[in-house]
Amino acid sequence: MPLLTSDARGVYVIAVTPFTDTGEIDWDSLDRVVDFYFEKGADGLTILGMMGEAPKLTQAESRAVAERVIRRAGDRPVVVGVSAPGLAAIGELGKAVMDMGAAGCMVTTPGSLKTDPQIHAYFAQVARTLGAGVPIVLQDFPLTTGVNISDEVLGRIIDDVPEVVMLKHEDWPGLAKITKIRKAEAEGRRRISILCGNGGVFLPEEVARGADGAMTGFGFPEMLTDVVRLASAGDMDRAQDLFDAYLPLVRYEQQPGAGLAVRKYVLAKRGAIASAALRAPGAPLPPETVAEVERLIARQEKRLKELN
Amino acid sequence: MPLLTSDARGVYVIAVTPFTDTGEIDWDSLDRVVDFYFEKGADGLTILGMMGEAPKLTQAESRAVAERVIRRAGDRPVVVGVSAPGLAAIGELGKAVMDMGAAGCMVTTPGSLKTDPQIHAYFAQVARTLGAGVPIVLQDFPLTTGVNISDEVLGRIIDDVPEVVMLKHEDWPGLAKITKIRKAEAEGRRRISILCGNGGVFLPEEVARGADGAMTGFGFPEMLTDVVRLASAGDMDRAQDLFDAYLPLVRYEQQPGAGLAVRKYVLAKRGAIASAALRAPGAPLPPETVAEVERLIARQEKRLKELN
Amino acid sequence: MPLLTSDARGVYVIAVTPFTDTGEIDWDSLDRVVDFYFEKGADGLTILGMMGEAPKLTQAESRAVAERVIRRAGDRPVVVGVSAPGLAAIGELGKAVMDMGAAGCMVTTPGSLKTDPQIHAYFAQVARTLGAGVPIVLQDFPLTTGVNISDEVLGRIIDDVPEVVMLKHEDWPGLAKITKIRKAEAEGRRRISILCGNGGVFLPEEVARGADGAMTGFGFPEMLTDVVRLASAGDMDRAQDLFDAYLPLVRYEQQPGAGLAVRKYVLAKRGAIASAALRAPGAPLPPETVAEVERLIARQEKRLKELN
Amino acid sequence: MPLLTSDARGVYVIAVTPFTDTGEIDWDSLDRVVDFYFEKGADGLTILGMMGEAPKLTQAESRAVAERVIRRAGDRPVVVGVSAPGLAAIGELGKAVMDMGAAGCMVTTPGSLKTDPQIHAYFAQVARTLGAGVPIVLQDFPLTTGVNISDEVLGRIIDDVPEVVMLKHEDWPGLAKITKIRKAEAEGRRRISILCGNGGVFLPEEVARGADGAMTGFGFPEMLTDVVRLASAGDMDRAQDLFDAYLPLVRYEQQPGAGLAVRKYVLAKRGAIASAALRAPGAPLPPETVAEVERLIARQEKRLKELN
Repeated sequence: MPLLTSDARGVYVIAVTPFTDTGEIDWDSLDRVVDFYFEKGADGLTILGMMGEAPKLTQAESRAVAERVIRRAGDRPVVVGVSAPGLAAIGELGKAVMDMGAAGCMVTTPGSLKTDPQIHAYFAQVARTLGAGVPIVLQDFPLTTGVNISDEVLGRIIDDVPEVVMLKHEDWPGLAKITKIRKAEAEGRRRISILCGNGGVFLPEEVARGADGAMTGFGFPEMLTDVVRLASAGDMDRAQDLFDAYLPLVRYEQQPGAGLAVRKYVLAKRGAIASAALRAPGAPLPPETVAEVERLIARQEKRLKELN
Repeated sequence: MPLLTSDARGVYVIAVTPFTDTGEIDWDSLDRVVDFYFEKGADGLTILGMMGEAPKLTQAESRAVAERVIRRAGDRPVVVGVSAPGLAAIGELGKAVMDMGAAGCMVTTPGSLKTDPQIHAYFAQVARTLGAGVPIVLQDFPLTTGVNISDEVLGRIIDDVPEVVMLKHEDWPGLAKITKIRKAEAEGRRRISILCGNGGVFLPEEVARGADGAMTGFGFPEMLTDVVRLASAGDMDRAQDLFDAYLPLVRYEQQPGAGLAVRKYVLAKRGAIASAALRAPGAPLPPETVAEVERLIARQEKRLKELN
Repeated sequence: MPLLTSDARGVYVIAVTPFTDTGEIDWDSLDRVVDFYFEKGADGLTILGMMGEAPKLTQAESRAVAERVIRRAGDRPVVVGVSAPGLAAIGELGKAVMDMGAAGCMVTTPGSLKTDPQIHAYFAQVARTLGAGVPIVLQDFPLTTGVNISDEVLGRIIDDVPEVVMLKHEDWPGLAKITKIRKAEAEGRRRISILCGNGGVFLPEEVARGADGAMTGFGFPEMLTDVVRLASAGDMDRAQDLFDAYLPLVRYEQQPGAGLAVRKYVLAKRGAIASAALRAPGAPLPPETVAEVERLIARQEKRLKELN
Repeated sequence: MPLLTSDARGVYVIAVTPFTDTGEIDWDSLDRVVDFYFEKGADGLTILGMMGEAPKLTQAESRAVAERVIRRAGDRPVVVGVSAPGLAAIGELGKAVMDMGAAGCMVTTPGSLKTDPQIHAYFAQVARTLGAGVPIVLQDFPLTTGVNISDEVLGRIIDDVPEVVMLKHEDWPGLAKITKIRKAEAEGRRRISILCGNGGVFLPEEVARGADGAMTGFGFPEMLTDVVRLASAGDMDRAQDLFDAYLPLVRYEQQPGAGLAVRKYVLAKRGAIASAALRAPGAPLPPETVAEVERLIARQEKRLKELN
């Protein structure tokens, strides 16, 4: 499988990890959801992220999931989340998945990083730990990590750590950050790929400002791939029409914590996975939520028909 | 002016504080925007909140703003934000504005509160500080305050602090909290009013779950009043159609920090205030943002026409 | 090896993990430091804690360290830190070390816990994950975890999770917490063992208030064992004299982050480990610090002589 | 009164604000404690800090306290804490106290600062708000503010904001920060005064590394002035002997939150203030604490006698 480069574009869907109702990994559903994502137009996948319930997996399970998905994906790139409190665990999992054929490793900032110089030093350490040539996706997600990465320190990381080839952009607000990165590149800085997260809730604006696509999840991943395709082709109005039709559900699924159960409910309803179950701790959707989601989906379908 | 009660309903718009381009309070615009909010259907106003740039006002200015708005509002209720790091300042401003005729005082959790018992004790202290009979709006906004109020401790505050008559609900995700409060009331707990914040981004669902309306701001406050009116009347589809038309801009304006400049830009464009200026520190909108906002407004107008 | 019970008393030293200068685990030094701790009077050991550089170990290394220490300790109890971001990893390591003969598992609060009910639910989940009969040491260390455990929620955990047999007490300030726990026990609540951390900086007062001893580290662990022995025997003046002699260095070694390098420097100087090296990231002591430590040790020796 | 300069040295005691048992400001005790601090050797005072219960004062009270202390201090310098959530309040109080004759204003980092560039920009804004020529003391206290100031950004503030003439140093661990600042000055950077906080718990080492003294409080402020005097004169052993005698109480009084009640208890016991009362919220010392404090004082007196 080719390695991730700073020219990567398109949509890398953050994959869910399917479980049975009793909490076992559902391997058939894992295959099925991988196929589903590619059928909906994904250019790649990202596994073992926060929305993949990675912290609920044992190390043996993490490796088995990575192996299965990488094999199923064939020649399409799979990025693997390897964030951990310590560098040793990052190195251990990172090397294992690169040997399996992963396209790169995604790493976010541990909460212990308090200052810009610490953030800068951290990614240099991660790069040394993973080893030369392992492409790194820097996940910038302050809402969850509690660590804010300034434009300035991000620029210094890009300058000093060539292994960082991609930004998983989910700072909020974050539109100005994209503009600043692209402006610095126009003035001579090394290019990096920018794929955006946050459930895609600013996707049209992000692509218009120079992002290369999305790295996030959604129960209807075809929204992500269609919007990125249309917006990249300059058809902003059509991109935004489509986006707006999905936005009420995007907004609903983006609720922190609560959103993953919604996403799995939608994927199960669509047949992409057998069960909507989260591994414990994680409760099924209460009936009020099911009613709200069903109503949003029905309205979304109606609106999509109007658009066609 | 009548005091706020636990039966309060409708929309209390979080008012902006208009400044001139040189950073002085623009008193004419303040009158104008108060009128504007009521013309668009507001049931009340909330001033000196975070989105009113309260921390940028001197104490003398805060009082002058409160006095001006309360007088202009006439017999319509004005809630005043009095949050401060210490109880003395809360008491000082709170008593002053109640004397002016405010309907109640809004207070949020200082970041120093670390545990549920501390949160509980805090609101009892605030009530003692403000004095018997002063209605309190408890602002529950963990994204900004860093303090999470569990359903359980919120229930204990409702039980033990009768002065808390309203929840300014902006926990995220927060829909289940509304359901739980209303369920507890059905089982005998004292009723409180729930007005929702967060720019209204979940307003249809919130009203459907039992919220009494909204206490938030938006460049088009008529969206808030229309959605609450329609949803309260049970016309959920029409409410959601309207909401969906505004949602792309709601989402855009809800960006933390960055959103207020957008809101003021829209209000100035609509003539409700003379200048979109924020008081320093606070920069004007960069051209990319202006272009995005203008595009969203144009699309919004088109969509609203289609709906009519 | 017997399991930890709520009657545990004395000093469980938080063991360092010795590395060679090139960052490999130094197995000979690991044996030596285990012996050293017991020679200095330790009643038990706690390994794979924050000060054991646990996050810098791979999973395979963690297990190998646990196995080696448990075997070397013979019939003396070894508690193993198993904190991790996810329950799966806690269960995986926890079961492995209990099979090796660990006396119990130490678990702290992940930073994602935001409210008292979440903290309470978490320890119930941990107990279910580790399985019935596995003794849990609840580490209460808000300075590092960012999670504050109120007296109230701690009481509810004690009431509802019988597997929690010990509190590793390092809240700061935390003296009143000890008094409250013991008072509640006098009124009927189940007893738990309380061993105190924070480098022992309040050890005399803690034991006087009812703590059962210490679970912490220090370059001179004989201070911990002597002070606990004397204070438990009621010889408070002698305990405090001894404590005071060591306090300047205790204070110095307790500096967050920086202290571990000092502790390893002292242990290496005393011959308990071969090298003072921390595994990367972690720098050797700068010369100013070495000079300060040496000066504190020289003064400490002089003062100890005066006392004898 | 002369303005604070970057050559300031010695001990600026953080003054308590005395209250009567019913919570009124005790003006007589305020005069008395000001005199007491100077009798014990203080070079200056700092008022309206966190340990002065500043957030519990109304704005009118804050000004009255400042006026009274500045007048009583005569020609000795008084620094006034003016930290507030917004710049307007900082400017309002800052200008008022400078007009009264304050020597400078102390400002810390609001919790909203998330990145190094934001921290840097903040102090530039504060300087503009206070006006040219108003000396600023930058309080660096991450334990309480949650904001960590890297050596790097501190250096940039020193370079770019000439009004910052002093660092109130209470980062922890913070010894290396002093060494780095002094090294940078040796290489050409503008000098600033460094006075250390944290209750003086590292005072001998801090002065040895180049700090100019202390800006903190303690029930026995003569410890601060004597240690600084001896250490500055190079008599490190005598300084440390004295320091060690007080250290058990320093450590006890330094407990976050709880320590202020201890400090006021000691000051009341010594006759420097009439009542140990804290303004609400703030409870009197429980009997266990009183017993511990009395025991520590008795031992301290004994030890001091041995030294003489």
